[in-house]
Amino acid sequence: MEPVIVGWGHTKFGRHDALDLEDLIQSAAGEAIASADIDPAAIDAMWLGHFNSGLVPDGFCSSMVVGLDPALRFKPAVRCENACASGSAALYAAMDAIRGGRVRVALVVGAEKMSGLGTAGVTAALGGASYQKEERGQSFPDIFAKFAQAYARRYGDPAEAMAHIAVKNHENALRNPLAQMHRALDLDFCLQVSERNPMISDPLKLSDCSLVSDGAAALILVSSDLLGEFTRAVGFRATAQVNDVLPLSAKDLAAFEGPARAIRAAYAAAGIGARDLSLAEVHDCFTIAELLTVEAMGIAAPGQGREAVIEGATRRDGALPVNLSGGLKAKGHPVGATGVSMHVLAARQLLGDAGEMQLPDASLALCVNMGGGAVATYVSVLEAVKA
Amino acid sequence: MEPVIVGWGHTKFGRHDALDLEDLIQSAAGEAIASADIDPAAIDAMWLGHFNSGLVPDGFCSSMVVGLDPALRFKPAVRCENACASGSAALYAAMDAIRGGRVRVALVVGAEKMSGLGTAGVTAALGGASYQKEERGQSFPDIFAKFAQAYARRYGDPAEAMAHIAVKNHENALRNPLAQMHRALDLDFCLQVSERNPMISDPLKLSDCSLVSDGAAALILVSSDLLGEFTRAVGFRATAQVNDVLPLSAKDLAAFEGPARAIRAAYAAAGIGARDLSLAEVHDCFTIAELLTVEAMGIAAPGQGREAVIEGATRRDGALPVNLSGGLKAKGHPVGATGVSMHVLAARQLLGDAGEMQLPDASLALCVNMGGGAVATYVSVLEAVKA
Repeated sequence: MEPVIVGWGHTKFGRHDALDLEDLIQSAAGEAIASADIDPAAIDAMWLGHFNSGLVPDGFCSSMVVGLDPALRFKPAVRCENACASGSAALYAAMDAIRGGRVRVALVVGAEKMSGLGTAGVTAALGGASYQKEERGQSFPDIFAKFAQAYARRYGDPAEAMAHIAVKNHENALRNPLAQMHRALDLDFCLQVSERNPMISDPLKLSDCSLVSDGAAALILVSSDLLGEFTRAVGFRATAQVNDVLPLSAKDLAAFEGPARAIRAAYAAAGIGARDLSLAEVHDCFTIAELLTVEAMGIAAPGQGREAVIEGATRRDGALPVNLSGGLKAKGHPVGATGVSMHVLAARQLLGDAGEMQLPDASLALCVNMGGGAVATYVSVLEAVKA
Repeated sequence: MEPVIVGWGHTKFGRHDALDLEDLIQSAAGEAIASADIDPAAIDAMWLGHFNSGLVPDGFCSSMVVGLDPALRFKPAVRCENACASGSAALYAAMDAIRGGRVRVALVVGAEKMSGLGTAGVTAALGGASYQKEERGQSFPDIFAKFAQAYARRYGDPAEAMAHIAVKNHENALRNPLAQMHRALDLDFCLQVSERNPMISDPLKLSDCSLVSDGAAALILVSSDLLGEFTRAVGFRATAQVNDVLPLSAKDLAAFEGPARAIRAAYAAAGIGARDLSLAEVHDCFTIAELLTVEAMGIAAPGQGREAVIEGATRRDGALPVNLSGGLKAKGHPVGATGVSMHVLAARQLLGDAGEMQLPDASLALCVNMGGGAVATYVSVLEAVKA
C-alpha cells in the first residue's frame, strides 16, 4: 500500500517565547489530526523529526507527542535525525512503515526550538552537524561560504544570483502568514555589505543566511486503501534519499553531488524532468544552497544557474517557481521541522489550499530537503491523488 | 518480504580510549559485512541507533558509516533515537524498509561513545532522557530508585532479588569475551553497602547499576527472498513497540506497564508464552529494571518476581535464562548499541554460535530493549530460519 498525505498542521515559524519544544510538537500534531478529521485513536504510530544537538536539554523527545492525547498512549513513537533533513527522515520512515504494513495511519511531526539559546549557542549546536574531526569550530555560514567560494573559483562570482534569491524568497514570504519574516528586501540591500547587512562569512552576508526559528509542522499519512475515507489526498509520485560522506574535504564543493543524484533518481522514478514540475520547495539554508540546488535540479546546467535565477526562472511568475513559501530564508528554518514543512506547503499547493501563496494549476511539486553540507538529501515528487 | 538477520558485528564493550564514535561504528559495521560475506555494494541503506544527548560533539552521525567503504557513498543513511532503545529503533526502521520493499539489504549499527566525559558529564547526558519539565537534575539512578521504592511499598523490599540479579549477570559475563566486566560478584558484596559498593541512589547501590561503556554492534538484514544466498539466518517470529508518555508522574512505578504491553503483544503475535522461550536478553540498566521485566514477561506474577529470581528461574540453569551475555549490568551499556547487541547475541545463541555462552537447544529468544523510565520498549521474538 502506498502512503498518502491527508492532513497537516504547521505552527507559525519564528520566535515563540511562550512555547517549548513539547508545546510546538503538540500544537502542530493536534492541528494535523483535526485537519485530517480523524480520531486520535486511529493513529497507529508516530515519528518525530528533530535535530537538537544541544538546542534544548530534552534528549529524548519521541514520546512528547504521545502525551497529546490519552488515545496515543502505548503506541509506537520514534525520533529520526539527519541534521536539517530530520523532518524528511521522519516522514520517510513513516512511509516505510505504511508500505511494509506495520501501520495504516501515521502521525509525522518535525519540530525545533532554537530561540532558547543565544546566537553563539545556536551556532555551536548547529555546528555539531559538521564533521567534528576536521571541521569543529566552523559555523555553518563558514561551511556554506566554502561552497560559494568553490563555485566562484570554477564558474565566477555567485553573489548577484544569491542576492536575487534572497529578494525572491522574502517577497514570496509576504504571501505566507506562517512565515517568520514579512519584510521585503531590495536587491541593493542584499548586494551590499552594510551595518544592517554585515558579512557573516565571506562571501555570505546576513541576507544570504536563513533564520533561527522555533516551529513545528505535522502530517497525517494513511495507507492508500483508506483513501475512501478522506476527501483530499496527496501522493508521492517518487521519493529518493542519498547520503554522501560527512567530511567536506571528500567532496566537490562547486556542485551538490549528493542532492543532484537524489533529484535525478526521483525524476527517473517519477518519469519526469524539471520542466514537468509546477513548483519546488528547496533547501535554501543559505542562498548559495538554493543556487546549487537549482543546478542540481537541472533548471540550468552547472555554472549557469546564476543566469536562470537572475532572469527570474525561479520567481513566482517564472518557469519553475522555487520556494513560494518564502523558503528557509524568510519562512524560517526550525531545522527538524523544515522537511515536514516543505511537504505541508507543497501538499497545500497541490490541493488548491495555499491561500495567498496559491499558484494556479499546481499539479506536480518537488521537495528537496538537505542535512549538513550536502550530506543527506531527501527528494519527493508530490501530486494530488484526490482533490 | 520478511527481514532476516544474516550477519553481525560487535566490538568489545568497555573503555576504548583509542576509538572515537566513528571508529566504533565502522568497526562493528565492517565486521557485520564480513560476517554476512556480502559485497558492501550490495547494501541498499544504513540505519544508525545512537543516543548522544551531549556524550560526543558529533550531532550528525548517520553518515559516519557511509565513510566505511566507497561503495556505500550516495546510499541512504539515517539515525534513529529512542534513548537507550535507539539500537532497536534503528533495527525496526530497517525492518519496515525491507517489508515495504524500499531495500533488500540493510546495515544496522548501534553505537555509543561514553567514556569521553567524566562521570558528571555522562550522568548529565543520560539525564537528558528524562522529562526535563519535571525531572531535570535527577539522574537515572534517581529515576530507577523511584521504581524500586514504589515496588517496595507495594510488594516489599526488592533488594535481595536485585542482588541476585547482579550476581547472575556478572557470572554470565565471565563467558562473554565481549563483556566489559569479567569479575564475579558475590551475593554478600551486592547486599551490603560498603566503600567499594556505595549507595548511589537509595536503594540502588553501585552493584545495581549498569556500566558506562564505549561500544558498537551491527546487523546485516536481508529480505527473505535472498535467503538462498546465505547459509544461516535468524528471523523475527514477532516484534512489538510501545511508547508510554514521558513523565514519570503519569505512570505506575511499581510495574513496567509499557514493557508489559509490548511483551504481551509480541507473545500474542508469536503465538507463544514465556514458557516457550529458550532465553531472553532484557534491559537491566538497573537490577530493579530486570526484576520488573521478569514480571512483565510473565515469568512470575506482579510482586512475585523476587522469589523467581532468588530461586534461580532466570539463571543459566534455570527455567528461562535471562541475560546470558551478562546484560547491561556486566556486558556493558553503550546506550545506542544495546538494542543491536541484544539481537546479535540472541541470534548467535539461536545459530549455535555463542561460544562459551552457548545454551544447548536454544530455539526461541526474546529481546526486550527499553528507553528511559519504561518509556520506549521494543520486543522481538527471534528464531533461526536457516542454521
